[in-house]
Amino acid sequence: MISKEQIAADYQQIQDEICAALELTDGNAHFEEELWEREGGGGGRTRIIQNGNIFEKGGVNFSAVHGTLPHTMKKALNVEQDDFFATGVSIVIHPNHPMVPIIHMNIRYFEMPSSFSSDQPVRWFGGGIDLTPHYVIEDDARFFHGYLKSVCDQFYHDFYHRFKLWADDYFFIKHRDETRGIGGIFYDRLTANEELSWEQILEFSKAVGRSFVPIYTELVKRNRNKDFNEDQQAWQYQRRSRYTEFNLVYDAGTRFGLETNGRIESILMSLPPTAKWVYNYHPVPGSEEEKTLSLLKKGINWV
Amino acid sequence: MISKEQIAADYQQIQDEICAALELTDGNAHFEEELWEREGGGGGRTRIIQNGNIFEKGGVNFSAVHGTLPHTMKKALNVEQDDFFATGVSIVIHPNHPMVPIIHMNIRYFEMPSSFSSDQPVRWFGGGIDLTPHYVIEDDARFFHGYLKSVCDQFYHDFYHRFKLWADDYFFIKHRDETRGIGGIFYDRLTANEELSWEQILEFSKAVGRSFVPIYTELVKRNRNKDFNEDQQAWQYQRRSRYTEFNLVYDAGTRFGLETNGRIESILMSLPPTAKWVYNYHPVPGSEEEKTLSLLKKGINWV
Repeated sequence: MISKEQIAADYQQIQDEICAALELTDGNAHFEEELWEREGGGGGRTRIIQNGNIFEKGGVNFSAVHGTLPHTMKKALNVEQDDFFATGVSIVIHPNHPMVPIIHMNIRYFEMPSSFSSDQPVRWFGGGIDLTPHYVIEDDARFFHGYLKSVCDQFYHDFYHRFKLWADDYFFIKHRDETRGIGGIFYDRLTANEELSWEQILEFSKAVGRSFVPIYTELVKRNRNKDFNEDQQAWQYQRRSRYTEFNLVYDAGTRFGLETNGRIESILMSLPPTAKWVYNYHPVPGSEEEKTLSLLKKGINWV
Repeated sequence: MISKEQIAADYQQIQDEICAALELTDGNAHFEEELWEREGGGGGRTRIIQNGNIFEKGGVNFSAVHGTLPHTMKKALNVEQDDFFATGVSIVIHPNHPMVPIIHMNIRYFEMPSSFSSDQPVRWFGGGIDLTPHYVIEDDARFFHGYLKSVCDQFYHDFYHRFKLWADDYFFIKHRDETRGIGGIFYDRLTANEELSWEQILEFSKAVGRSFVPIYTELVKRNRNKDFNEDQQAWQYQRRSRYTEFNLVYDAGTRFGLETNGRIESILMSLPPTAKWVYNYHPVPGSEEEKTLSLLKKGINWV
């Protein structure tokens, strides 16, 4: 098994690759970097891009932290051990253009020493990519899910199927009875077994990370030059309010960060630059907005 | 003890009075009413004012609901009984003008039959008023707290002191280490004792409800004609993002409503029409924004 240091180094490299590609795509804005240290051990590189040609606000964050698990985290993770190591890359991008989707990607690795010193450490991988179009464009949705399926299929035959269902369930705004977007893949506590080695799972994790750039640059390219009007921008801001609701009410990572005194500005970089809440909004029958709402449902098969 | 029907009727009248006064103050917008029924019993009158001269978005809601408590609510309330009755008036107002504060008011009554039929029902009152200025104006803060103290002092000598501390603790955004605003009063599970009858507590609850109009119309009058610029408006939208964070992450009423499938549009009417999240914002040293942040702390004595 590759060391945790190697995994963190691989993740850092993926962060570098993604930031370079996004700056190239934007053509104007550059990432600002904030290096931070965690009191209990470790730290991170928060990188934020703002007010670009394409990207209104986005973060591509790396962190590698270690230390003693707070009691609440032990309970939440259902583990007994006190020491932990966690590393990951997290991305959320809010574009200017209402036809360009919001995207989220995360790859992460978690490790704890076993309670018995002779044993292997307890460890797992988690992550995923999901897409939140302000307007669901069916061709784009098929491209997105098709790409993810092709990545998953290189590693295990049921990964796409399982992780797509998991994303549908996870990225769900219960009180609105709607999904956050068109889903994608989500997985957690992925461990080696007879069929997959740790090395293969690490490669899968890196492949998910490296699928971000080709997927998102394609979606930006397809939509960035479309015309849009003020009503469509207002709708974009409304969709962002739903994104905010999901992240503050349900997202496990966000709530975990808030409860364990993480670096607030890194955790909440996922929140949109502008969001609007309109009372009792109902889309015009037959409109594109209504069509989008009809597609924010679990269980749609895009491939 | 006055009946629950009488309390609900008194609360409805307070809703009517407040809506009439706010329409008069605004001079342009009118409340739209949505009557709704709860599947399990009872219902409410949601009243929303939008796009006014003064009020960008506000709700003055009445409800009186009854039925069987869901398991989660029994646990949250730490009660054994199944049947309940609850009535209340809830207000949140987001004004257009950054110098006019956001205000929140709630009065509520809760009742359950005793487990022993010969006993009195289990019952209590709760509520409060608190103020969230985008810019803390110290004169206005003193007026606000002074008015609340004078209302409290008419009923019991330590009400203001106790309920002011309670508001400081309740309206606190832990992950920002700042209070939502300048507090006010907050109380819960207020019951009769040797010194206060149920009638007096009901009168206190109504007095809190009826203090809303004189307090808020005064604060509107003081500030509505002040000049403001785009930067101040942007700051207002940032303060609203903190309001959103409090309501979605901490507010007990909001989270309870989301978890028990309340009427979503009535629960989330408290969220702002427009909010902005700016990454890693730091106010200019010596600015009014910095001064406001310095006053968003627990334990400031305004009277």
